[in-house]
Amino acid sequence: MNNRLGRQTVTFDNPPIIIETASTVGQKEGKGPLKSTFDVILDDDTLGEKSWEKSESMLQKKTALLALEKAKLQQSDIDYILAGDLLNQCVGAHYSVRDFDIPFLGLYGACSTMTESMSIGSMIVSAGFADYAMCLTSSHFCSSEIQFRNPLEYGGQRTPSAQWTVTGAGCAILSSKGTGPKITHVTTGKVIDKGVTDISNMGAAMAPAAIDTLIAHFNDTHRTPDYYDMILTGDLGVVGSDILVELMLKEGFDIRTKHKDCGKMIFDIEGQDVHAGGSGCGCCSSVFCGYVYRELKRHNLSKVLVMATGALMNPMIIEQGESIPAIAHAVAIEI
Amino acid sequence: MNNRLGRQTVTFDNPPIIIETASTVGQKEGKGPLKSTFDVILDDDTLGEKSWEKSESMLQKKTALLALEKAKLQQSDIDYILAGDLLNQCVGAHYSVRDFDIPFLGLYGACSTMTESMSIGSMIVSAGFADYAMCLTSSHFCSSEIQFRNPLEYGGQRTPSAQWTVTGAGCAILSSKGTGPKITHVTTGKVIDKGVTDISNMGAAMAPAAIDTLIAHFNDTHRTPDYYDMILTGDLGVVGSDILVELMLKEGFDIRTKHKDCGKMIFDIEGQDVHAGGSGCGCCSSVFCGYVYRELKRHNLSKVLVMATGALMNPMIIEQGESIPAIAHAVAIEI
Repeated sequence: MNNRLGRQTVTFDNPPIIIETASTVGQKEGKGPLKSTFDVILDDDTLGEKSWEKSESMLQKKTALLALEKAKLQQSDIDYILAGDLLNQCVGAHYSVRDFDIPFLGLYGACSTMTESMSIGSMIVSAGFADYAMCLTSSHFCSSEIQFRNPLEYGGQRTPSAQWTVTGAGCAILSSKGTGPKITHVTTGKVIDKGVTDISNMGAAMAPAAIDTLIAHFNDTHRTPDYYDMILTGDLGVVGSDILVELMLKEGFDIRTKHKDCGKMIFDIEGQDVHAGGSGCGCCSSVFCGYVYRELKRHNLSKVLVMATGALMNPMIIEQGESIPAIAHAVAIEI
Repeated sequence: MNNRLGRQTVTFDNPPIIIETASTVGQKEGKGPLKSTFDVILDDDTLGEKSWEKSESMLQKKTALLALEKAKLQQSDIDYILAGDLLNQCVGAHYSVRDFDIPFLGLYGACSTMTESMSIGSMIVSAGFADYAMCLTSSHFCSSEIQFRNPLEYGGQRTPSAQWTVTGAGCAILSSKGTGPKITHVTTGKVIDKGVTDISNMGAAMAPAAIDTLIAHFNDTHRTPDYYDMILTGDLGVVGSDILVELMLKEGFDIRTKHKDCGKMIFDIEGQDVHAGGSGCGCCSSVFCGYVYRELKRHNLSKVLVMATGALMNPMIIEQGESIPAIAHAVAIEI
């Protein structure tokens, strides 16, 4: 078998190129530290729709269309669109792509979906099954809040470890040719459940999955954290990031100077009252497709490991006393 | 670009082989016409679990373990498991695999998930990214009924077009080597929404997607229905199958003698009071991994097109007045 490194990692003879990205975020995200790096900041988080689910769907659709426009491509150029979101039965994605004339592969990896999409997309493009593949995910604070937590009008206190679901979407177009950052390796995560049951502490639930995938990536590739300019996690937030860095150190990998987390970067943690930081499929996708992609194109970053993390429960199964399984998928990107 | 035929189809230089399958069904399915073809018929649809969601998860887990056992493989032999189900946030799959030591890719394609899984799995195995990939899906009548429709205790009438969600799971192991039926082509569907809004008529909502993918498959491969011994849809049921056959005829493709539908095959439609037939991710997966795989291995069938179909809505978005988008993914199998 070619292309396989160790148990969880594959590498590419023909690394797919991220030829273009698009990112859209909501009003709150548009006031955060990364505000200058997004393509679009919404002035109306409803996007003119009558429900939050439809708003999220429209957010995803507009972001995909913007990516096509920026790449100067037509829908007919795209061989596959790989998309997902957090909503029940992934309706954010399904209603966003139903007007598209593009073969569709639906994914669910909770907040890990963006790197799951880029992982599968990379394999499909690299192997010659596609010239172009679009990777697309979104989340919306309002649709997530009512689905996973409480009605928007409910004035409950949030715990210090709670995270704020990002209103945002990101779309990356992978291609077998062109110029831009390349995806060189994909490390696919396992489902890891260390028994955390607090749904207001997703960071703690997801950190063990991030650790598992990160160690697998270093072992499979024989790389150390020094190899990368940035090791970017999706939405571990303040609590999960601290756990990751501390436990990685105990495992012999010092990522202290390399680690960044999209959930910590997208908001002013103190000033925007987001407690432990941002979360959601749209957190990693908007930060990667915005800030990180720009920095790669400008050669301010040249080697980045992007690892979105997802918590794979639903509210009902937690009420039934279950713990929270999680997963993390990593893609290594170089320019 | 190699391997691509037309807009939606890919073919394989190294066709992946379905080296083994496993199927498990519930008590009602175990009294149907295909009862002798399943590996396991449950004598207790709860599987000893305290909630229907956990029952479904255990159903999927046991089916995966049985497939490994039948194939004489260890978890460490499997490079990827690609799984999904109908439950919110796919908890059927996530809780089934959390004890597995296998890299995981989570999919959501509603009842189309089995062929989505086999499509992506085929590409990954054929391209050399994996020696072995497991494709796994499930559905459970009780967990689906309470999530999508009514409490189990609710004694409402079902409409004639309503379908009965299959309690069942199927697991197929794909490999780059070995003997067995091969996956020669994959045709990936687009999301198609023709405006059907009746969630008690999934067959009508899904039939247009099945037609779209089937026409794409014939056009891309330059094949006609005559090429196949069987054209198998997932769960169009009685209503959707009639629509499919009739509209395909109008499009110039006579599939009348070739078409079978898992939802019509798994139950005695009249005798088991299932109205328009079976449905669910577990319908196509248990019938394919049971009856169809056996017939292929016995050379009673040699060329089969398997196309699972999925309705991509959730109950909330239908209440918001939306119609039902659907999708169908086809895999061509030969021995």
